Amino acid sequence: METNSKKPRIVVIGAGFGGLWAARTLAGSPVDVTVIDRNNYHTFLALLYQVAAAELNAEDIAYPVRSVFWKKANIRFELAHARRVDPERRRVETDRGSIDYDYLILATGSVTSTFGVAGVEKQAYFLKTLEEAVALKNHIICCFEAAAGEADEEKRKALLTFVIVGGGATGVEYSGALTELVHGPLAKDYPGIDFSEVRIILLEAAPHLVASMPADIRAYTTTKLKSMGVDVRLSTAVAEVLQDKVIIDSRREGARPFSATSGETLSTHTVVWTAGVRGEELPGLSGIPVGRDGRVPVEPTLQVVNRPDVYVIGDLAAIREDARVLPMVAQVAIQSGVKAARNILRQIAGRSPEPFSYADRGSMIAIGRKAAGVAIGRRTFKGFFAWILWLVIHLANLIGFRNRVMVLTNWAWDYLLYERAVRYVFPSGMPAGSKSRACAPPADSN
Amino acid sequence: METNSKKPRIVVIGAGFGGLWAARTLAGSPVDVTVIDRNNYHTFLALLYQVAAAELNAEDIAYPVRSVFWKKANIRFELAHARRVDPERRRVETDRGSIDYDYLILATGSVTSTFGVAGVEKQAYFLKTLEEAVALKNHIICCFEAAAGEADEEKRKALLTFVIVGGGATGVEYSGALTELVHGPLAKDYPGIDFSEVRIILLEAAPHLVASMPADIRAYTTTKLKSMGVDVRLSTAVAEVLQDKVIIDSRREGARPFSATSGETLSTHTVVWTAGVRGEELPGLSGIPVGRDGRVPVEPTLQVVNRPDVYVIGDLAAIREDARVLPMVAQVAIQSGVKAARNILRQIAGRSPEPFSYADRGSMIAIGRKAAGVAIGRRTFKGFFAWILWLVIHLANLIGFRNRVMVLTNWAWDYLLYERAVRYVFPSGMPAGSKSRACAPPADSN
Repeated sequence: METNSKKPRIVVIGAGFGGLWAARTLAGSPVDVTVIDRNNYHTFLALLYQVAAAELNAEDIAYPVRSVFWKKANIRFELAHARRVDPERRRVETDRGSIDYDYLILATGSVTSTFGVAGVEKQAYFLKTLEEAVALKNHIICCFEAAAGEADEEKRKALLTFVIVGGGATGVEYSGALTELVHGPLAKDYPGIDFSEVRIILLEAAPHLVASMPADIRAYTTTKLKSMGVDVRLSTAVAEVLQDKVIIDSRREGARPFSATSGETLSTHTVVWTAGVRGEELPGLSGIPVGRDGRVPVEPTLQVVNRPDVYVIGDLAAIREDARVLPMVAQVAIQSGVKAARNILRQIAGRSPEPFSYADRGSMIAIGRKAAGVAIGRRTFKGFFAWILWLVIHLANLIGFRNRVMVLTNWAWDYLLYERAVRYVFPSGMPAGSKSRACAPPADSN
Repeated sequence: METNSKKPRIVVIGAGFGGLWAARTLAGSPVDVTVIDRNNYHTFLALLYQVAAAELNAEDIAYPVRSVFWKKANIRFELAHARRVDPERRRVETDRGSIDYDYLILATGSVTSTFGVAGVEKQAYFLKTLEEAVALKNHIICCFEAAAGEADEEKRKALLTFVIVGGGATGVEYSGALTELVHGPLAKDYPGIDFSEVRIILLEAAPHLVASMPADIRAYTTTKLKSMGVDVRLSTAVAEVLQDKVIIDSRREGARPFSATSGETLSTHTVVWTAGVRGEELPGLSGIPVGRDGRVPVEPTLQVVNRPDVYVIGDLAAIREDARVLPMVAQVAIQSGVKAARNILRQIAGRSPEPFSYADRGSMIAIGRKAAGVAIGRRTFKGFFAWILWLVIHLANLIGFRNRVMVLTNWAWDYLLYERAVRYVFPSGMPAGSKSRACAPPADSN
């Protein structure tokens, strides 16, 4: 390729944090970059749970990819669904045609992992994409609408029981935000409902919540959630999810498999599954080995073994550092995206790629109003100050000034006026195969 | 009903302007009011076209009905689809059960009328509900995404041709807003597209646009739209709409039927039908006669003939005044809603209902940035001042302070920064039967 005068072509699959930062790093260099994504917007996933808790509009945390590259002449975007990579031919096949590359960056991210638990795929609500967040929000509101007109006590309680599976950051943050929604604005919307009937239950199979954070933040998180009224059940896993119930199992000892026979049944119409993620495999990734969790092992330089022209970054990459694999978080995606782009530029210039070194900037979690946990290096912060820090850092990291204004306005409304503005069931026509029956009358289909 | 001590029950079907203002008028009186709507939010329809032009979020112009009645103890809301009215039994049948009433207010509004023109129902885009507006906006963006990758000139031009049918307020306002979207933010998003290939065509069967406004505003509107680049074709009607074209017919003389054989063909993937509205018939409205346009004739008191306990208001009602029937506009809905509610209170108190007298507060139309027409009484205003008036009045009429903040912010972004923020294709999973194929690859289904 370097023998002719054409610029090297770099294809980036995925417009998440990893793909975007990789492309931005390549802006202005003598390369032609094509970014592909099946959506024409980038999603700020850190605030996704707030969309599902009716705190933010979907559009507040989405940013059109084309806008990111307005002034970057060597970067173009293509709305397409990448179906297959052919590393031999150096070609990406999409649903809109094929694209050839000289260098490829795979940044397709992660998807929800069901661990093969029965019923999860079909019955549980996921929280990884904007559509899933909006569908879940609609479903929550529908449950309250249905409960408002339900005279049968058992049925009503099932509608007002919400089970969240997974005590990581997503599950914790969503439990807190949902609790605040229910006992704040919704309590005003539905004066006919006895809110003591509402149950919000958080299940975690391990003995701790947010296992990745320091011990004092873990303890604070658990205490805080319980004080907000969340029924936190540790060492508890899900055996099976059914249409109107979930079977759980509490274990005290190690790793014995859970079984449906020894479990307890919770009547509920809402099971939110945040218990695991795995890499999003690109079908036909022939010749590129993928680990058990769907993540692609990479060299320290982020290149695929024996494929020096293919890089994998972000959640999809299994990046080893010392004894561990880096977590699937935004900072890893951003930094690995920048590094992969710079390594490609080094290769083009005839130099060797450098190994990637992750700079851990700490982690944060928001439990609720004025309650967050922040860990930076060895220091930890909890409570109100941590919460302010959390707000500021997330606001600053949003792409797009308008998005910041919108999110700030919505937050002001909630945190100052205790009102959630996004309490609509919209769109009301759910896609075929929708999981929610709460808004659909028994003998009728929407 | 007055012989027992129970409060009279009033059922209001529809939470649009008419239904909401009727219910608000009844707040605090010794009556029990139930408002029914198939959506749990009220839509500010005057700004709906801006959602379809990617200027506003859908949620910016929607307001949860329950919030309107937070502090009104005698008013409750029920999310239900009213299927049938039984005036003999004084009962409304919905998809969630039956509701008995002592007095009924029908405020279900209007729907798009296709005039039986072939292909409209199946192929054209409507602009009467939030879902329709969002679907249309998504489709417009999809057309540009598809055009960006389309090498064939004819196909590309068909994707970039947008036909709006109906030169009333909706068609005019949408044509202007769409033109500003296309030649502003979209031109920045798609640098690879030759925007001289874009055609926006407005068809009107009559010899004038906005026939309901004074002559000077009609002329101003036409001139302004043309100067913005809209291809305005008067005395032109649609004979048939097909999947990728529309057959039109231009006539100079009166009311001879249009025919497909004498028409011109426009290749397009987007036909927006705003050409007519009719009353939304409630099936099984047995015994209540309905006119040819679906509107229910009412007494001057807004009661249905021979049904003193049933009132019809807003778009659904055919209210005669002098020689004409009142237009289907928001002010008529609001004022008739208030009047019907007051008349019911008079009946309960043993007095006679009063005839309704409409106070015409004028009309307004926005053609584009700094260009509007306002007619109040005999006075007309055009241009920049009229536009400011239009902005202020619409902002003031939005229900909900938060909505006003959101709309104002989005307008500031557009009018000051020439940027439209809502340029996402979301939700991407369109309901089954969606009309848009622009985003769906040929051999694949979303």
